[in-house]
Amino acid sequence: MLIVQKYGGTSVGTLERIEAVAERVIKTKNEGHDLVVVVSAMSGVTNRLVEYGEYFTKDLNTREMDMMLSAGERVTSALLALALNAKGYPAVAFSGRQAGIVTDTMHTKARIIFIDPTNMNKAIKEGKIVVVAGFQGITEEGDITTLGRGGSDLSAVAIAGAINADTCEIYTDVDGVYTTDPRIEPKAKKLDKISYEEMLELASMGAKVLQNRSVELAKKLKVNLVTRSSFNNNQGTLITGEENMEDAVISGIALDRNQARITIRGVDDRPGVAAEIFSSLAQKEINVDMIVQNIGIDGATNLGFTIPQNEMEPALEIMRSVISNPKCVIESDNEVVKVSIVGVGMKSHSGIASLAFRTLAAEGINIQMISTSEIKISMIVAEKYGELAVRALHKAYNLDK
Amino acid sequence: MLIVQKYGGTSVGTLERIEAVAERVIKTKNEGHDLVVVVSAMSGVTNRLVEYGEYFTKDLNTREMDMMLSAGERVTSALLALALNAKGYPAVAFSGRQAGIVTDTMHTKARIIFIDPTNMNKAIKEGKIVVVAGFQGITEEGDITTLGRGGSDLSAVAIAGAINADTCEIYTDVDGVYTTDPRIEPKAKKLDKISYEEMLELASMGAKVLQNRSVELAKKLKVNLVTRSSFNNNQGTLITGEENMEDAVISGIALDRNQARITIRGVDDRPGVAAEIFSSLAQKEINVDMIVQNIGIDGATNLGFTIPQNEMEPALEIMRSVISNPKCVIESDNEVVKVSIVGVGMKSHSGIASLAFRTLAAEGINIQMISTSEIKISMIVAEKYGELAVRALHKAYNLDK
Repeated sequence: MLIVQKYGGTSVGTLERIEAVAERVIKTKNEGHDLVVVVSAMSGVTNRLVEYGEYFTKDLNTREMDMMLSAGERVTSALLALALNAKGYPAVAFSGRQAGIVTDTMHTKARIIFIDPTNMNKAIKEGKIVVVAGFQGITEEGDITTLGRGGSDLSAVAIAGAINADTCEIYTDVDGVYTTDPRIEPKAKKLDKISYEEMLELASMGAKVLQNRSVELAKKLKVNLVTRSSFNNNQGTLITGEENMEDAVISGIALDRNQARITIRGVDDRPGVAAEIFSSLAQKEINVDMIVQNIGIDGATNLGFTIPQNEMEPALEIMRSVISNPKCVIESDNEVVKVSIVGVGMKSHSGIASLAFRTLAAEGINIQMISTSEIKISMIVAEKYGELAVRALHKAYNLDK
Repeated sequence: MLIVQKYGGTSVGTLERIEAVAERVIKTKNEGHDLVVVVSAMSGVTNRLVEYGEYFTKDLNTREMDMMLSAGERVTSALLALALNAKGYPAVAFSGRQAGIVTDTMHTKARIIFIDPTNMNKAIKEGKIVVVAGFQGITEEGDITTLGRGGSDLSAVAIAGAINADTCEIYTDVDGVYTTDPRIEPKAKKLDKISYEEMLELASMGAKVLQNRSVELAKKLKVNLVTRSSFNNNQGTLITGEENMEDAVISGIALDRNQARITIRGVDDRPGVAAEIFSSLAQKEINVDMIVQNIGIDGATNLGFTIPQNEMEPALEIMRSVISNPKCVIESDNEVVKVSIVGVGMKSHSGIASLAFRTLAAEGINIQMISTSEIKISMIVAEKYGELAVRALHKAYNLDK
């Protein structure tokens, strides 16, 4: 098999850990596989470089910052290749440029345009282990770029696509994707398999194993992603296409604590009102999450939406300036959370939603807002009930079995 | 004018010092000059990276070490460019590759083959200050290389040659080149001007302002070098061609303490003997400095040479195995130093050497070996007389005037 492995900052945080990564890479090589290994900077390095930059300037999204930031991953990739060579396993370290990763010119948050895998394929053919400095690429003009948060994951997925790898393993300090947060529900189970779509929904709701950008790219490139721990030999979770997934109805329960709710009662029920409200929020770059509106009665309706908690005050200010109708009442609540049920199975199964509502009702939990998609049901409830709701739903959908 | 400035590791050792370098660069820019600035890694960084490498391997002269080592200078160049941009002076940081520095493939001690100054010239034309990461280049295959000790000086000189700079200023923590070591003779004077040849002789004898490789390259490329301090505004020393230098007879007195003397009495005075002795030393990579042999008497001669002190024992061992004639006597003395008088003027002036011999004789200092070149007279004396010899010669040649 041709395998891409990606190790994050914690996994390469010390020289001893880099040595442990080398041993893991060698184990995979000895099993007869070819490997491209993508590494992050040693943990703390990138933050220190950012602090260096901040000493001089507030303008941190520049070509020069990228030149500096790219240094951390280069050092790690060179060290891992040195370690592998010293252990008798021929390895070669590639920068983003040498790996053929070409990006646009959006410094510090560049997007990959294409990958020219010539160098990597040549080295693999020669039997070498390829170690790539993650998080970075090069513009067509030859300037160094970095890919923003989660950039090394993105490097790994894009490379896996470019070289047609059989699988792309993302190593972190957690075992994989769980049915829910084990700190809330100790009976939470690690999932062996989950679809890209479910992972996207779970990630956006706080399952922080992988950033959405990487999952989206894996989906687009049809890359089989595996998230697993670099600190043990557990199997991890395979994130892949939907085939053969009919069995699993619900994959997991997610809890998002960073939610605040604003409700506007008595909004004029005519075209353009919602547009006005949400474009003024967008102008101030306030991220709106859930939006719920019912059919109106007597020409007026209630409009509800949620936002991150720290954006409550600016959002309320915008509402007060936008809502001119004196009959409108603006309500807000910072003490809410979002509980979500995620599963590709739900679209072909009836009764999934009603089980959720019945379960919360049985616990005496009032549902303030509901929003559904093809693979997700999200509910806003009072903050104090968040964990209870997660545990009750986890049990109701038999996720602990 | 078009000026290249190079700042060493101490000059960019902290963020505060990088800021001070930025101010100095801006001052030069405001005087109406165009600038390319070459920087080293912040002091300590390269050593730390080498230690990282040593954790994994003894094989430190590799492609991967170079990829790692090059990171330090990249960070400094990015930081200085960030600082300049933040102060309103458009600047662009270039890696060795982006500066067009192409080297051979001898990793960790590569030699510059050529420089393609297109990027630098374009940026200068746009009014930008160019900041180049020193010490590094790229092979024609695209691998990163480093240039070995003193590599950043070499980058600066080579760049000055490639862009036809008017002058190349090397900033360190000393004011320039002195007539002798001021710690030995407090009356030592800073030289305003010195020839490449004299500088080469002085550098090889312990005036550690500049490595010989850089001076040789400056001579070859006809680059006007200036060494000066980044911690004050003193004028520094110009190192340049010989023109208009007839006035100065002697430029300086150098003291080399790392000398040991071996003398072989009664060597067969026939062709091939010296060759055999010195090729066996060369095979063991022992650096021989001075070699003195007189015309023989009665078919036998005395052969003397000096070596670094820590190579005395292996050298003696080689002598014992090479010298088979039982009439030969091998003598050695670790407690000697080399005192040298350097000056392009001496080749057209008689009496220079005799003044030296008379001066030392007047102080009661016995001269054990003498060796002369066109611009240098070197004498081996007992270690205990070294500093006295320097002071006496400094006075005799009027260097304190």
